[in-house]
Amino acid sequence: MLSLSQYHQMFTDHIEKYTVSAVPENLYAPVNYILSLEGKRIRPILTLISADIFSGSLKKALNAALAGEVFHNFSLVHDDIMDSADLRRGNTTVHKKWDNSTAILSGDVMLILAYQIFENYEPNIFVPMATLFSKTAIKVCEGQQLDIDFEKKQEISFDEYLLMITYKTAELIGVAMKMGAIIANATTADQEKIYEFGKNLGIAFQLQDDYLDCFGNENDFGKKIGGDIIGKKKTFLYIKTLELLSGNEKSNFISLYNSPYDNSKDKITLVKDMYNKCNIENDLAVEIQKYTDSAFQILESLKLPKEKNEFLKNIGNLLVQRKI
Amino acid sequence: MLSLSQYHQMFTDHIEKYTVSAVPENLYAPVNYILSLEGKRIRPILTLISADIFSGSLKKALNAALAGEVFHNFSLVHDDIMDSADLRRGNTTVHKKWDNSTAILSGDVMLILAYQIFENYEPNIFVPMATLFSKTAIKVCEGQQLDIDFEKKQEISFDEYLLMITYKTAELIGVAMKMGAIIANATTADQEKIYEFGKNLGIAFQLQDDYLDCFGNENDFGKKIGGDIIGKKKTFLYIKTLELLSGNEKSNFISLYNSPYDNSKDKITLVKDMYNKCNIENDLAVEIQKYTDSAFQILESLKLPKEKNEFLKNIGNLLVQRKI
Repeated sequence: MLSLSQYHQMFTDHIEKYTVSAVPENLYAPVNYILSLEGKRIRPILTLISADIFSGSLKKALNAALAGEVFHNFSLVHDDIMDSADLRRGNTTVHKKWDNSTAILSGDVMLILAYQIFENYEPNIFVPMATLFSKTAIKVCEGQQLDIDFEKKQEISFDEYLLMITYKTAELIGVAMKMGAIIANATTADQEKIYEFGKNLGIAFQLQDDYLDCFGNENDFGKKIGGDIIGKKKTFLYIKTLELLSGNEKSNFISLYNSPYDNSKDKITLVKDMYNKCNIENDLAVEIQKYTDSAFQILESLKLPKEKNEFLKNIGNLLVQRKI
Repeated sequence: MLSLSQYHQMFTDHIEKYTVSAVPENLYAPVNYILSLEGKRIRPILTLISADIFSGSLKKALNAALAGEVFHNFSLVHDDIMDSADLRRGNTTVHKKWDNSTAILSGDVMLILAYQIFENYEPNIFVPMATLFSKTAIKVCEGQQLDIDFEKKQEISFDEYLLMITYKTAELIGVAMKMGAIIANATTADQEKIYEFGKNLGIAFQLQDDYLDCFGNENDFGKKIGGDIIGKKKTFLYIKTLELLSGNEKSNFISLYNSPYDNSKDKITLVKDMYNKCNIENDLAVEIQKYTDSAFQILESLKLPKEKNEFLKNIGNLLVQRKI
């Protein structure tokens, strides 16, 4: 195995070569802009790692990693329009830097480009990849729709929340690892296991994301802190807090969170105060641990050499304990 | 060969069975809505006709026809957001009936569904279809971007206009016919010829579309008349009129067309008056004939049996003389 920074560098070199130099400029400039922003590159790195775990060619895995990252960026550009987000990776979002039409169309072309990148593979890889990719992409759209639907609902069960984050976030993380396994010609059983490993880590990852959106540091996180609160997003923090409250306190909190609020800074402070009062950070840690444990349990069933097993465990811990 | 209405019915039966019954409702209701609106179904019918011309299976061609139509509807939903259009096929546009976020996301899922429909084919058809489809879809996005870019430009050459409508409209019409030929296992040379036939007809079709957007009947056309004028679209009518004007008359017309105008009804009337004064309808007819002739010339090189040749000529004439 390589080091994390080596995988990162390998992918960065690959994506830098990918610059789309076609015209019209107004269509492709936003594509190159969003792809060039320093991101965590979690999904593509996981594709490379997974290919390496199953002794596949890293070079061969690079295009699958790229397709996944281009797709992920398509979804960010469109989601940022829907969420009226100003910041992404510490930079202006595409629809703010250009406009909504440009962001819609550049997103569209990225979704198509992602499919096109798979054409670098021979048909026996292209077909399962494109098929897997469509299935996943549809789930990501469904997850995003649920996320939007939930903004208008006051109470969401944990199971509904779990389905939403699984579709919106965890699936693609699982699939990123599955793609690496496909490239490496891993058995179907192993492909499924590494997918389940990634999916469970992806759930833990999103739980941590909910936390960072509220309690993180804007410079590290790269998004505006409190965006979920302003967007009335039904996060783990919100759902769990409601479980712990009752009576007037509960209905007041529901009303605070879901009503239009003149001063967004005040709203963020009030909501955070309640989260702190409920000691929600502890509940979050328990839940993150639960999904990390599930991931690690699946990992054991893969019966990998000790070194590879430890490597994936370290990656898992890094992912879910991240501050950025 | 069947009659036009038989091809239409065959496709209508197929698309009606396609209703996407998945959840979330808010994601799929707009998909079913736009697909159910009575459309001309030009592209899918051309796919069926082309398969029939090359003695392929109509049944087998139905899914390629469906994929093309689902893709076309994705592009309509996103274009209507960008163009702030109120009406489509005589009904409220998706973003007006729901909202922008819903229209973006439902469009996204249709683009993915289009790829997924190709999975009904075995790999030796799936691979070339998905590859052709990506290449075409990218051109459609590029054409749409040019169309938007041109709104902010005052003068556009005919060649620039031609590239824009070729990408935005004509390519997909050519490809719809090529898909039918692929399904029918036509030779590569014949696939190219039927594509070129469709593409040239597609250009003539868009020229007629420019005319109908300005001089058509709203009830027949299904879109608001004068939309291109209000959107400062650089249509054939505009470009040709500028060629015929000079001096103050030209600069006044440029200014009328490209400036914000309080009363849109007045603007439409004034622009139409100028088009009539320039007798632009004649120039349009000449241009439409030119591309129809090109299409028919390509058709001759296909050396089809007389009956099939006549059938395609009739289709071509119907397409470019349409009022709806």
